[in-house]
Amino acid sequence: MKARVGVVGYGVIGQRLTDGVIRQEDMELVGICDVAPTLSLRALVERGTPMDVYCALPDKIHDLEKIGVRVRGTLEDLIDKVDIILDATSAGSGKKNKELYMKHKKKAIFQGGEKGDVAEVFFHGYANYEKGLGKNYLKLTSCNTTGIIRAVDALDRAFGIERVVITIIRRVADPGDTHRGLVDLALIDPVPSHQATDLMEIMPHVQATGLLVHVPTSHGHIISILATPQRKVGVDNVLDVFAAHPRIRVVRIADGFNSNTALFRYARDLGNLRGDMYEIAVFEETVTLAGKDIFFAINVPQEAVVTPETIDGIRASLELQKTREEATSLTNKFLGLKPKGRVA
Amino acid sequence: MKARVGVVGYGVIGQRLTDGVIRQEDMELVGICDVAPTLSLRALVERGTPMDVYCALPDKIHDLEKIGVRVRGTLEDLIDKVDIILDATSAGSGKKNKELYMKHKKKAIFQGGEKGDVAEVFFHGYANYEKGLGKNYLKLTSCNTTGIIRAVDALDRAFGIERVVITIIRRVADPGDTHRGLVDLALIDPVPSHQATDLMEIMPHVQATGLLVHVPTSHGHIISILATPQRKVGVDNVLDVFAAHPRIRVVRIADGFNSNTALFRYARDLGNLRGDMYEIAVFEETVTLAGKDIFFAINVPQEAVVTPETIDGIRASLELQKTREEATSLTNKFLGLKPKGRVA
Amino acid sequence: MKARVGVVGYGVIGQRLTDGVIRQEDMELVGICDVAPTLSLRALVERGTPMDVYCALPDKIHDLEKIGVRVRGTLEDLIDKVDIILDATSAGSGKKNKELYMKHKKKAIFQGGEKGDVAEVFFHGYANYEKGLGKNYLKLTSCNTTGIIRAVDALDRAFGIERVVITIIRRVADPGDTHRGLVDLALIDPVPSHQATDLMEIMPHVQATGLLVHVPTSHGHIISILATPQRKVGVDNVLDVFAAHPRIRVVRIADGFNSNTALFRYARDLGNLRGDMYEIAVFEETVTLAGKDIFFAINVPQEAVVTPETIDGIRASLELQKTREEATSLTNKFLGLKPKGRVA
Amino acid sequence: MKARVGVVGYGVIGQRLTDGVIRQEDMELVGICDVAPTLSLRALVERGTPMDVYCALPDKIHDLEKIGVRVRGTLEDLIDKVDIILDATSAGSGKKNKELYMKHKKKAIFQGGEKGDVAEVFFHGYANYEKGLGKNYLKLTSCNTTGIIRAVDALDRAFGIERVVITIIRRVADPGDTHRGLVDLALIDPVPSHQATDLMEIMPHVQATGLLVHVPTSHGHIISILATPQRKVGVDNVLDVFAAHPRIRVVRIADGFNSNTALFRYARDLGNLRGDMYEIAVFEETVTLAGKDIFFAINVPQEAVVTPETIDGIRASLELQKTREEATSLTNKFLGLKPKGRVA
Repeated sequence: MKARVGVVGYGVIGQRLTDGVIRQEDMELVGICDVAPTLSLRALVERGTPMDVYCALPDKIHDLEKIGVRVRGTLEDLIDKVDIILDATSAGSGKKNKELYMKHKKKAIFQGGEKGDVAEVFFHGYANYEKGLGKNYLKLTSCNTTGIIRAVDALDRAFGIERVVITIIRRVADPGDTHRGLVDLALIDPVPSHQATDLMEIMPHVQATGLLVHVPTSHGHIISILATPQRKVGVDNVLDVFAAHPRIRVVRIADGFNSNTALFRYARDLGNLRGDMYEIAVFEETVTLAGKDIFFAINVPQEAVVTPETIDGIRASLELQKTREEATSLTNKFLGLKPKGRVA
Repeated sequence: MKARVGVVGYGVIGQRLTDGVIRQEDMELVGICDVAPTLSLRALVERGTPMDVYCALPDKIHDLEKIGVRVRGTLEDLIDKVDIILDATSAGSGKKNKELYMKHKKKAIFQGGEKGDVAEVFFHGYANYEKGLGKNYLKLTSCNTTGIIRAVDALDRAFGIERVVITIIRRVADPGDTHRGLVDLALIDPVPSHQATDLMEIMPHVQATGLLVHVPTSHGHIISILATPQRKVGVDNVLDVFAAHPRIRVVRIADGFNSNTALFRYARDLGNLRGDMYEIAVFEETVTLAGKDIFFAINVPQEAVVTPETIDGIRASLELQKTREEATSLTNKFLGLKPKGRVA
Repeated sequence: MKARVGVVGYGVIGQRLTDGVIRQEDMELVGICDVAPTLSLRALVERGTPMDVYCALPDKIHDLEKIGVRVRGTLEDLIDKVDIILDATSAGSGKKNKELYMKHKKKAIFQGGEKGDVAEVFFHGYANYEKGLGKNYLKLTSCNTTGIIRAVDALDRAFGIERVVITIIRRVADPGDTHRGLVDLALIDPVPSHQATDLMEIMPHVQATGLLVHVPTSHGHIISILATPQRKVGVDNVLDVFAAHPRIRVVRIADGFNSNTALFRYARDLGNLRGDMYEIAVFEETVTLAGKDIFFAINVPQEAVVTPETIDGIRASLELQKTREEATSLTNKFLGLKPKGRVA
Repeated sequence: MKARVGVVGYGVIGQRLTDGVIRQEDMELVGICDVAPTLSLRALVERGTPMDVYCALPDKIHDLEKIGVRVRGTLEDLIDKVDIILDATSAGSGKKNKELYMKHKKKAIFQGGEKGDVAEVFFHGYANYEKGLGKNYLKLTSCNTTGIIRAVDALDRAFGIERVVITIIRRVADPGDTHRGLVDLALIDPVPSHQATDLMEIMPHVQATGLLVHVPTSHGHIISILATPQRKVGVDNVLDVFAAHPRIRVVRIADGFNSNTALFRYARDLGNLRGDMYEIAVFEETVTLAGKDIFFAINVPQEAVVTPETIDGIRASLELQKTREEATSLTNKFLGLKPKGRVA
């Protein structure tokens, strides 16, 4: 029997979690839930995609129906029908919704914007899958942290990583956002940024710090990572590790992969739905050694990057697979993610 | 027998013309031609789309093969096999390529970047289809002009338009462009901009002028249009004309369609290939009267907007259909373009 | 005896009003008032400029003193000592402060962000000076409207203007703003924008409409203006009118004045305090005729443009000069504003 | 007798070198040289600043005179009258000009855009003053490198620095530039960037690497620096070193110094000519330890930052002072640069 999944909050993240769940052959998307006639729902109607929609606020049902959505019921109706909820509502709403999930004795996975105490486990599919096994409430790492941990965890399993120093050049808004943005400004936060402390929570044996700088871009974060391995390694060893990872692409600046937006454009040209990319990219020409330390830069496509790890979370929480290898393999298979290998 | 079409230059525009031709059931995409292992070609290889690729420079064939492209031959080989070429090379190259097209006695359609003398007719599918009938060399209007003329031609056929004054807020680069861009700058050109003079060439009975301002965005042009009709019309008449046009969307700011990028995001969420949009959008709340004049704002998605009118050009040049109504209907049908009607 | 002036709110606008008042030889800057240890106050301390500072909130006095500000008293202390207050607090605060101004029977001039009912007269130094004579509470036009009216009023007095259609390409944030901004977005508002309705309030014989588009720039607005004169005029007549106006610069794109930021850079290179510019610029190569209508583009430096008209407001409210000619001449003289003439 | 200095190339850098030389009481600005009627020269004319202008191309003299510049002679005339030339022409021109300097047996200092072989010594006033003593041709470090070395040299003299890893978030254009720019793009270069290799050339005992990412801003570079000291130091020791440096400001994010543009705005509010800032800023809340390594972020105001070190270069080349302490003290004194101390 398929795992029954509901998605609450059909925004930038919720849409993509929905897309990802639909591709999992061992899962059933029961429905999605939102509260307003957003452009995302209008697009769903215009696409004509059959999908059951629920409305969190009864007095908003009419608003959704006016734009052509057939509303199947309330949020509680949706909760009733699922094994697990992916909560992708705006930061803070997840905590409130959790009361309903608890009332209906249903599991849920929250996104990175929620406070940590919403969940039992702060979760990353590759780094601490086993900790999530059977837990009722997981919280995913944020987009940046998810991408950083993917890269650091890969190195850690290969070489043992003791310390990480990151500089995050953060896209300040998603494409189309009007509620946030910057003009001609690189805005900096105090050190350490939450991504560094989050990484230490997920990978307690690593000492981490980092700087976060917000810049006026919308198509992905660029992050420099200095990672101190337990033993001396070569650049080729590092590239081999990344090239073997199904959720990492090794790309070359010389080939034209020179920016966050080059990768976004590539994802569009690949024909990916919404122009999305699940993989982080490692820029080959940045992988270098600084003394014993490994230094490199990655790109994190903030809109879709958490989808695979969130689906891993379903597998952990519902105990669909017992090990990280089994779980991530299945998620990857259904999402079409496989090792790309080294650049020719 | 299907019209055989080749696309030369597989960049931002060429890719989209290719996509559009593939969707025309009465046309056959014979192949595409390029000269370097671009990201666009890499994406084609990774997608695994079967498509015949030709290489314009024999000594570059190896470069394409190295990234996995199976090269079918040279540019002349491609020309030999087609009835018509869509030339989407960078500005100026089309003129050079034309010598080959003439040598092989093949028709061609050039894009807006070429100088006007490359072609017999400066062409727009809706505004002067009949002028292109049977001609060997057409040049399409540029993206901005294509969108402006769509709107003005629609009004002109309904009400008769005497004069047009436009202010173009031009996106300065396509997503991912590194060879052009602006930071914190609204850069203005002398009046009249070429779009105004181009419009007068295509629609000689209209007097037009306009200002062009380049701004640091990449997801579509925003244009204000003041159109003087021959007789007094009402806002509803105007909206009805736009709502009935298969290549125009009437959208509402209040619904969230408040910007170039909202429309780009919507196209992505529609699941459109590459997040493309063929339609221009008219913002409903901007359609107003200024005295007798009609005033409104449109959005022009610069990457894909010329695709339908270019395909109309194939129909005209090859005399596939004798009238603009027949030709544009067929293009629209195969591209899935139909009137969206007024916003509920 | 000099007119005694206080400035409340020492932000982007308040700093510049302060600078402007200091230059008026017939006015005395009594002091400024703010509530927090802002960078503006820190800069004042570091510059070592002697200026009396008041603190609106008694419990914040210590905060100001900690950064080296010598606080002279409270807001009411300042009000007591002046003839008129320039209120440049953030939108909405002016209304609240007005109660204090009324309690102390003191006049005040509010900025464009306040609601209209805060004042008896909606004021522009050139367009309706006489209406402000002796009034207790004036509200200035906003930066965009101030610039637009300067240009339209000049044409109106020369030729009679019946109708205006504007397209405003609005800088979305001031340099350094972190509370607003846009990334890769041209955001549009419904027609008519407030600038058009404001213009009609100040110049009731003109029919006006307009579109407002916010773009990711910070160094000035660019506006296209279509103005319908009562009689046919020539481009040279128009340019002569602008060139004779002390608060308008006629500049040439061909000379390098091609953008909002070129003008900002020029103001910096002029050695103007803070890189400010009081004048709007008219781009010579955009001044054209569209039929009988005059069409042109201007640049509005949003940070400083309202300073001269606000100082005109002091003159009107305190009845320092009885006519607009006398008042604006004096303001201009002290600010160093004189006609620049036509470009050589 | 005063050192006689000429500035060749009156652009972004040349204007600021000129401003800086004028402030040196032991130097005489003989004149400046340019070739076209730029906005910079127009501003000079409008300001009415008395300054002798020379024209590098005889057939362009008339162009300069047309905008009101009184041309004193040719480039060779200027060279004749000086002891040393500051060459701030665009990259590559310096090398050509050098032939003239050699012909006239005059010294010259080139800027960072020139190739290294143009000069005998690659120079930084604080890091290797003594190497420049008496040399005929110096080349300054580029803006980024100048700022980085200031910070690293300060730490190096205090604690001994062995290794540096930098991530540069580079403003991609100067305010008003139209010949370069990026939209919605963070563009990355291969590792190591030239700033890292340049640092090693100036400070050969330090091992350095770094990543350069270009972002769409114009008001200063933000750089994260990881510096490995020879011995363990505390955060307070580090802050004390920076706070004691006349060309470094320690600023606090909490106070509002949160970005490149906050510092630019502060410089404008300080009343600095052109809104310029000579000092780099260290963001206090970023100064942390990563294990034994020192981690922190700086802001580099690219337009003016090289001015002090270039003036140091004059002192070295002309042997005005024998030691770096004497030379930098004098430069600092005349530029008004002194230690700001720790933030209260």
